[in-house]
Amino acid sequence: MTMAPIGRIICAGLGPGDPDLISVRSDRAIRAARHIAYFRKAGRQGQARRIVEGMLAPGAVEHAMEYPVTTEIPFDSPEYNALLAAFYDDWTVRLQVLVQQGHDVVVLCEGDPFFYGSFMHLYVRLKDLVPVEVIPGIPGMVGCWNATGQPITWGDDVLTVLMGTLPEAELLRHMQGSDALAIMKTGRNLPRVRRALAAAGRLGDAWLVERGTMPGQRLQPLAEVDAEDCPYFAIVLVHGHGRRPVAEAAE
Amino acid sequence: MTMAPIGRIICAGLGPGDPDLISVRSDRAIRAARHIAYFRKAGRQGQARRIVEGMLAPGAVEHAMEYPVTTEIPFDSPEYNALLAAFYDDWTVRLQVLVQQGHDVVVLCEGDPFFYGSFMHLYVRLKDLVPVEVIPGIPGMVGCWNATGQPITWGDDVLTVLMGTLPEAELLRHMQGSDALAIMKTGRNLPRVRRALAAAGRLGDAWLVERGTMPGQRLQPLAEVDAEDCPYFAIVLVHGHGRRPVAEAAE
Repeated sequence: MTMAPIGRIICAGLGPGDPDLISVRSDRAIRAARHIAYFRKAGRQGQARRIVEGMLAPGAVEHAMEYPVTTEIPFDSPEYNALLAAFYDDWTVRLQVLVQQGHDVVVLCEGDPFFYGSFMHLYVRLKDLVPVEVIPGIPGMVGCWNATGQPITWGDDVLTVLMGTLPEAELLRHMQGSDALAIMKTGRNLPRVRRALAAAGRLGDAWLVERGTMPGQRLQPLAEVDAEDCPYFAIVLVHGHGRRPVAEAAE
Repeated sequence: MTMAPIGRIICAGLGPGDPDLISVRSDRAIRAARHIAYFRKAGRQGQARRIVEGMLAPGAVEHAMEYPVTTEIPFDSPEYNALLAAFYDDWTVRLQVLVQQGHDVVVLCEGDPFFYGSFMHLYVRLKDLVPVEVIPGIPGMVGCWNATGQPITWGDDVLTVLMGTLPEAELLRHMQGSDALAIMKTGRNLPRVRRALAAAGRLGDAWLVERGTMPGQRLQPLAEVDAEDCPYFAIVLVHGHGRRPVAEAAE
């Protein structure tokens, strides 16, 4: 549609938090970037930006995409959704303008961009307007199960990934039907997650991993975590025990 | 127990297949390795070795861990399991000897080593004998959903990872109860996977991804794949559609 030089959006998956676990391709894109964009809460440095500290080229222009202030509005209200949609619309236009001016813009995304990532809200808006490349990353839960030093799945194990925000009955149903579990969005939902795990008979096998692969990583059996303690950046894991060659099996 | 110098095992997760998607840490370990070990079928180059082609240091010693020939024995028989256990026991001793001689040995592992990886059979044997470091990787399924150019999960979507080897009724139950699906070990199980997806009303949303992120990558709607065609290195994906800001939702 245009003869002018055009750049592109490169969404760089950052992996679980340790900069050494970024892919070679993302690492190269981040170090070469002239324009870098990332989400953060207003007034915070933001996790994505923290991961790439020391990697940005001198003179790189930073675009902090600050989420609208949300403390007064419930997360599940139509007003909140409208506010968030306007925020994504606004940044879609700003990034589109940069690309149409001929710039490449590297958008940072924790974990893998296509796995529960905020970037997808920009992606669905931008992908038909400008060229977009997405570089996968190691999902946060993979870094967390690595931190436990035990395989998460073996043989024919079923793994289910759940959000702690789900109704308790639904959590319970999945916990009973799967071998391995990864439960995200815990935080203030942790008491409900614990109750469902206990009802499924699996609380004793559950681990809580905070800040997996990052400084301050903490790993403990969920049953030993104080019930009042609801850390925000935490994932609950239950390992599968699957099919193994007989010499390893307990029987 | 010993005062002699001791090396360690470094299991390097390779990610989904594109060498550019290896983590910075794994990449560095592979290029620096003096001893490299990898699984393969007898007489084949092997997928792991192919991924690192051109990356190994001159003079690196290669240890091809060739699976015992298995064409005559069923995979699920006690004889097969015993044969496989003896194979892992044998390589445990060989790798342990190298480490005790002071060598570091880099063991290659496709995808993420703790996610359905063959390495875990060595890991459980070696981890109390010698130092073992495991470097996570991008799981193969993440590379495959990246290839579809669509987010696999949004909002509160439930993702279930299934093996095509499971009984049809169990496949169906999980397909009905989850938003997003990743189904591995398809191959000759693909007809059963198709029947279960059709019964769950989800065949029309399923994609078949072969050799995700690798040369020869192929992506097609599963419903359009010839029923006789059962490619081995293929993953079936169904995307979730989760909770989104209202401006994006269909309603």
